[in-house]
Amino acid sequence: MTHASSFLVRLKPKTDARPIRHGAPWVYANEVVTDRRTKAIPPGAIARLQDGEGRDLGTVAVNPISKIFCRMLDRDAEAVIDRAWFARRIAAALAHRETLFDAPFYRLVHAEADGLPGVIIDRFGDALVIQPNAAWAEVAFEALAGAAQEVTGCTTVVKNGTGRARALEGLEEITEVVAGEVAGPIPVPMNGATYIADLMGGQKTGLFYDQRPNHAFAQRLVAGKRVLDVFSHVGGFSLAALAGGAESAMAVDSSAAALDLAMQGAQAAGTDARFATRRGDAFAVLEALAEEGVRFDVVICDPPAFAPNRQALDKGLRAYERVARLAAPLVAEGGYLGLCSCSHAADLSKFRTACTRGIGRAGRASQLIHTGFAGPDHPLMPQLAESGYLKALFYRLLP
Amino acid sequence: MTHASSFLVRLKPKTDARPIRHGAPWVYANEVVTDRRTKAIPPGAIARLQDGEGRDLGTVAVNPISKIFCRMLDRDAEAVIDRAWFARRIAAALAHRETLFDAPFYRLVHAEADGLPGVIIDRFGDALVIQPNAAWAEVAFEALAGAAQEVTGCTTVVKNGTGRARALEGLEEITEVVAGEVAGPIPVPMNGATYIADLMGGQKTGLFYDQRPNHAFAQRLVAGKRVLDVFSHVGGFSLAALAGGAESAMAVDSSAAALDLAMQGAQAAGTDARFATRRGDAFAVLEALAEEGVRFDVVICDPPAFAPNRQALDKGLRAYERVARLAAPLVAEGGYLGLCSCSHAADLSKFRTACTRGIGRAGRASQLIHTGFAGPDHPLMPQLAESGYLKALFYRLLP
Repeated sequence: MTHASSFLVRLKPKTDARPIRHGAPWVYANEVVTDRRTKAIPPGAIARLQDGEGRDLGTVAVNPISKIFCRMLDRDAEAVIDRAWFARRIAAALAHRETLFDAPFYRLVHAEADGLPGVIIDRFGDALVIQPNAAWAEVAFEALAGAAQEVTGCTTVVKNGTGRARALEGLEEITEVVAGEVAGPIPVPMNGATYIADLMGGQKTGLFYDQRPNHAFAQRLVAGKRVLDVFSHVGGFSLAALAGGAESAMAVDSSAAALDLAMQGAQAAGTDARFATRRGDAFAVLEALAEEGVRFDVVICDPPAFAPNRQALDKGLRAYERVARLAAPLVAEGGYLGLCSCSHAADLSKFRTACTRGIGRAGRASQLIHTGFAGPDHPLMPQLAESGYLKALFYRLLP
Repeated sequence: MTHASSFLVRLKPKTDARPIRHGAPWVYANEVVTDRRTKAIPPGAIARLQDGEGRDLGTVAVNPISKIFCRMLDRDAEAVIDRAWFARRIAAALAHRETLFDAPFYRLVHAEADGLPGVIIDRFGDALVIQPNAAWAEVAFEALAGAAQEVTGCTTVVKNGTGRARALEGLEEITEVVAGEVAGPIPVPMNGATYIADLMGGQKTGLFYDQRPNHAFAQRLVAGKRVLDVFSHVGGFSLAALAGGAESAMAVDSSAAALDLAMQGAQAAGTDARFATRRGDAFAVLEALAEEGVRFDVVICDPPAFAPNRQALDKGLRAYERVARLAAPLVAEGGYLGLCSCSHAADLSKFRTACTRGIGRAGRASQLIHTGFAGPDHPLMPQLAESGYLKALFYRLLP
């Protein structure tokens, strides 16, 4: 329950304050005056931000050990960042999700765009999984979690501290149940399918809500068709395809735990008779399937981030091209190929070029029939919309 | 029923043939050898295309009076462009639409991406509206229309020659019924709404299928809400909103004929008691509504192309910004603002920047919750995907 005015951060005289006035969410370390006093601000503290002339810009969270020195919390420099403040932000986020979804399974808070920088909250019915990926959210976790419970009425809260971002903030890895209890994996209804989410298993077995609209698009293509879901994780596209009336679906992933949850999901939905899993390196399985001469009507590849940052961009784009080149030969004439990227560094244009080239190198002509992004429970700050990380391209491979 | 080999077009020795080999659809006038013989090729003739060394590249349609000198029809230089050829292309296009849609109302052929350069065919149940926007399609219209009827079983064919592209091809404006009959406007079911399409009225009263997925997205936001549909045309977003359970919807357009069809659509769906129309200049109506102090929960603006070409880009972007600036004040706190562009020249990034700036200038903070494009019955050539003209941005204006 820190009051804003206990610490003060000031922009350097030469730093342009207009971006932050116009809604930019971050101030970098090289933009602020760093003296003994600012360096002594503890990570996660709340401070008043002023421009070079001492005019108030708002209330920010400070982390002197992060490149992102300040995260804007409130345009009001007098704001008090307490449980009531969290409750107002979360209530506004909840209103949007309740407009969008009939059932309480969604991303409830998507960080900066929902006014809670670095904070991710996923809702699984009566359970909330909170990722405090910035120091201030770790410091204020009790108020944050309490407000989230109060606003949603959820009884269970899991603190998931496994995100890559936490290391940059100097935060340790930790996953623990902080309220209620998690008896086991939770069935999650989505697009008519049932997914099994292991809230305590971390990235390998959790659930990503972001692909929901792309799963839904794929469902329009699969009735009576043979579907291949590569890098399937817990069965995102394959379970959706089965719910959409696919004749068969095969999920390929390197994680036995993820494939096991996928099969449990198929069993829960009564679609397991049409479902098969194949464990292995996705590239190797794509090559093996081609050698076996197997064809599918719809192939979808949703790999991990091959280009998570700029340094990895060229290598990542080559990997995306390779996925497209290896997947295209498995698609029957007139069939569909869905290719996804969750890489921040690969923008839509670059990712599309890599995919199109890979399909061309496989000797296939194509149409691009759909471009999809993360669902509307993953809002973006308009100023940062270029950073929308998730892209899904659906091609039709021509006869 | 022209055979390819009757005319020959050759690339200049210095013209790189790789783009066309890799799937580029067009060859420009400055890329080909133009001598007396090529200049004498009649507009719309079919020719064999060769590279500078005399190697076959394929079968093309030629128009010596267009900047687009050749349009690639078939990678096979021996292809015969006859009714059977058209039937194969249209059957491939039809298979895709029948996968996507339960009812026969869609864009059946979307030009280059469907292998029929410059040819648009929209299907309205038993009627086809064919736009031959390139000279070759005008010349081959009989084979094209015959094949389209044969493949679809449609009895009515309207030739719609009102597209802007026709002038560039030296074609005249003409709209006529060439098969069957058009008794009057046709009811079109889409997203649970009924639209009334006047197939003979041209752009002002026809129907655009491209916004279908964006109408569907808007429906998720409107249950029990007050909706404003600006530049409504025949009621695209407002009739969808009423079908989606909106408390009320108001359509604003400058065309009395379009608004009349919108009202007929509401009547046909039994939603007219919740529907109002307001005729006038959209900018003026936006300002008037603001003065009247009216607020809506959802406002959607789908203006005509303000930036149809590069020359008009800056002016067009200012117009989009102005739409956003005038519409944002009408949106209630926590409400939604949908902004669309059908401008080729304004790419997604530029359009988004203009919209975001307009919302900011209206003093509103926002989230970007959805980016949509034309539906999957409007496929793109992957090489030309940047040219995807239709963009729909949905913002949530924060409390």
